[in-house]
Amino acid sequence: MITDDLLSALPPGRLVTDPDQVAAYCHDEHSYVTPGRPLAVVVAHEREDVVAALRWASANKVAVIPRGGGTGIVGGTAPVDGCLVVSLARMTAIRELNPEDEIAVVEPGVLNADLDRAAREHGLMYAPDPSSYETCTIGGNIATNAGGLRCVKYGVTRESVLGLEAVLADGSVLRTGRRTLKGVVGYDLTALMIGSEGTLGVVTEATLRLRPAPRKPPVTVAAEFPTVRRAAEAVWAIVRSGAGPSLLELMDRATLEALDRWRNIGLEAGTAAMLLCQADGADAKDAADEMARCCHAAGAALVAVSEDEEEAAQLLAVRRAAFNAISRLGSCLIEDVCVPRSKLPEMFDSVAEIAARHGLPVPTVAHAGDGNLHPVFVFDRELPEIPAEVWAAADEVFRAALALGGTLTGEHGVGTLKRHWLGAELGAESLAAHLAIKRALDPLGILNPGKAI
Amino acid sequence: MITDDLLSALPPGRLVTDPDQVAAYCHDEHSYVTPGRPLAVVVAHEREDVVAALRWASANKVAVIPRGGGTGIVGGTAPVDGCLVVSLARMTAIRELNPEDEIAVVEPGVLNADLDRAAREHGLMYAPDPSSYETCTIGGNIATNAGGLRCVKYGVTRESVLGLEAVLADGSVLRTGRRTLKGVVGYDLTALMIGSEGTLGVVTEATLRLRPAPRKPPVTVAAEFPTVRRAAEAVWAIVRSGAGPSLLELMDRATLEALDRWRNIGLEAGTAAMLLCQADGADAKDAADEMARCCHAAGAALVAVSEDEEEAAQLLAVRRAAFNAISRLGSCLIEDVCVPRSKLPEMFDSVAEIAARHGLPVPTVAHAGDGNLHPVFVFDRELPEIPAEVWAAADEVFRAALALGGTLTGEHGVGTLKRHWLGAELGAESLAAHLAIKRALDPLGILNPGKAI
Repeated sequence: MITDDLLSALPPGRLVTDPDQVAAYCHDEHSYVTPGRPLAVVVAHEREDVVAALRWASANKVAVIPRGGGTGIVGGTAPVDGCLVVSLARMTAIRELNPEDEIAVVEPGVLNADLDRAAREHGLMYAPDPSSYETCTIGGNIATNAGGLRCVKYGVTRESVLGLEAVLADGSVLRTGRRTLKGVVGYDLTALMIGSEGTLGVVTEATLRLRPAPRKPPVTVAAEFPTVRRAAEAVWAIVRSGAGPSLLELMDRATLEALDRWRNIGLEAGTAAMLLCQADGADAKDAADEMARCCHAAGAALVAVSEDEEEAAQLLAVRRAAFNAISRLGSCLIEDVCVPRSKLPEMFDSVAEIAARHGLPVPTVAHAGDGNLHPVFVFDRELPEIPAEVWAAADEVFRAALALGGTLTGEHGVGTLKRHWLGAELGAESLAAHLAIKRALDPLGILNPGKAI
Repeated sequence: MITDDLLSALPPGRLVTDPDQVAAYCHDEHSYVTPGRPLAVVVAHEREDVVAALRWASANKVAVIPRGGGTGIVGGTAPVDGCLVVSLARMTAIRELNPEDEIAVVEPGVLNADLDRAAREHGLMYAPDPSSYETCTIGGNIATNAGGLRCVKYGVTRESVLGLEAVLADGSVLRTGRRTLKGVVGYDLTALMIGSEGTLGVVTEATLRLRPAPRKPPVTVAAEFPTVRRAAEAVWAIVRSGAGPSLLELMDRATLEALDRWRNIGLEAGTAAMLLCQADGADAKDAADEMARCCHAAGAALVAVSEDEEEAAQLLAVRRAAFNAISRLGSCLIEDVCVPRSKLPEMFDSVAEIAARHGLPVPTVAHAGDGNLHPVFVFDRELPEIPAEVWAAADEVFRAALALGGTLTGEHGVGTLKRHWLGAELGAESLAAHLAIKRALDPLGILNPGKAI
């Protein structure tokens, strides 16, 4: 067997070759990509396992597919035939949690929510909070530069990573960044690795920035609007007000209907959109009142401000349940366009128009404070793959976002599913620069081929 | 002449070959690097001038030294013999200032302070504010990932750059990033360019993030301490308090003495350090009171809280005058180490111990909230170059910072002066990765050779 060398280079039990067991490492969520058949899976327990895997893969010119929690939705971890999957999900140690410097040093398999809970024991938090925070890993978050609900105030994953240890294609170990908040020695290889979807190296350790957790419960504003456009206009007014929301989420009518059907949220007939805002600073009540004023001024029919922690948690739970509610309607292609914030109303109009013209249900939720929309294309669960009609509508949504100065993906990544549109966003010069960098760090092209770039 | 081809490729008046005029483009501030003799200077007025320059330079294998305002202090723009200097200082247009999206699109020669002033007309600000903000350019800020006083709250230059246009070594034009706050299509080439000191490309346009300017004047806290260590401990307490300072600066006794000698600031005999703090949010007064409490608790002898805008401006002016005051004492090597914030007291102790042992005056100011110290090594103005004793002491300071988990440079860059210590911070694997990326984007090695990496 070609894998015998690798087997002997690893401690017992870390190489999986049984096809049934291998199959468990071949899927992520909603990817609709038919996975290839891996040769084997390395279940890494330590950096040296990853080094051994990549040395072997380089020597044998075998493709390597790194994976974390398998919660991605763009086929970023889909195996190719004859590849080696390297799972980082078992590297779950929080190696250091330093409250003095507000730093954590973690292995890549640590779950996002586990790190946040550990930080909160010291009055700190880990800010990026993708919807899958209970099941996604820090390594996966780094691979896609993941976002979440708190990004509007605290930034995406990149703003919380100070340094990385990554194993390169040839098995050499690269350390990037530092433990300090500032530093300009050398190129920003940390940022280069973040969002590269495992095509440049396999992250085996991350030095992360923690932040002081808010001292008081957040103050929450929930506002219902007669049109999506008015809600989107309120978002812009809130941003411009300087109120500094820590959360600013928009749900459209189709999303609210899905939630109402599932959990009976008491949806009013005239409500076309709901805005959920929070402020978590020392001036949270004033900021929330300012956001409420913006909602009223934009034409909200109903605005509620609450300092009650339980009520806030319930409202957040509704928002976090949106995808589950929508997925009860059928199979879903979850999209992820992002536009400049002033273009939110136009982008919502475009999605509605495209959905209507194609006769498709496209419930849409947005991290509105960042201009990041998730239009969810719902289709018949019985269909074996994403129908052409859905792709045609998604294509129009992508192009509408680009025309508004936006991007294909705000936080989910390109993976396999969106490579088709890369050129439209990046252009030829940029693609050439990407390929030159890829060749420089991975000359054999073994790292996650066919993804991201 | 070898430059004839270039002359004919440029509009009239944009190629300077007269040695006296060329000499004006050969120095930056305090670099102590003996400049080589350029062949010529391209005074770029538009992107196409830069394209022409780099095409010509590639064809003739001539080194290209990009420069902005010439305010760097590490020899980052020092010419080499036979090079072509490309000055971006005349590309001063603010092409777009979009208050709706809080975005500015600027040419690289725009002065930092000019952009900030333009933004404030719309209730916005450009956050990064290096000490040289009235004379340094946005392009130079990007080349070094410049910091400043406001970074403790708003981040360094990288946190304010959304996208770039850069001309690569072969004259091709790369566009990176986007106009949106989030986006994960492709590699983070924006961050790769930022801080690369002109070794990967020449920035010809930047899309920048503006932020809402504070609505009210900041509240300022000035505190005097009997020892530097107590002041450094107060910094750590303030950070941990969650008060969220918008400015947190520390000046040691030697700096205060230099200021007092020059401008008579009424320095008390028992004052060994001064901390200057500001808060600029809606809760500024509460935050300032919290910071004042931290100063008292750490043993400050005198703590003053002021909401008076004029008084705040005066205090800030004193801080901003620190380098000028110190430079009256002699020639200066301004250093720039950065350590984890809990290590500030130890780092101040190390600097004092090294200064005493070498018998050198080393006044030190710090962007303390970021852990970023500027020890200034003062030496005899008559000396033609930096004496070996100063380098020996600086070497010890660098190594002390690295031993505390810190970095050689927080915001000034590596340039020519600090390349000697690169390996000590980066290590062999990282240097190899740097060189691979450099070769990928600049195979002839013509862009700012001998700098940064």
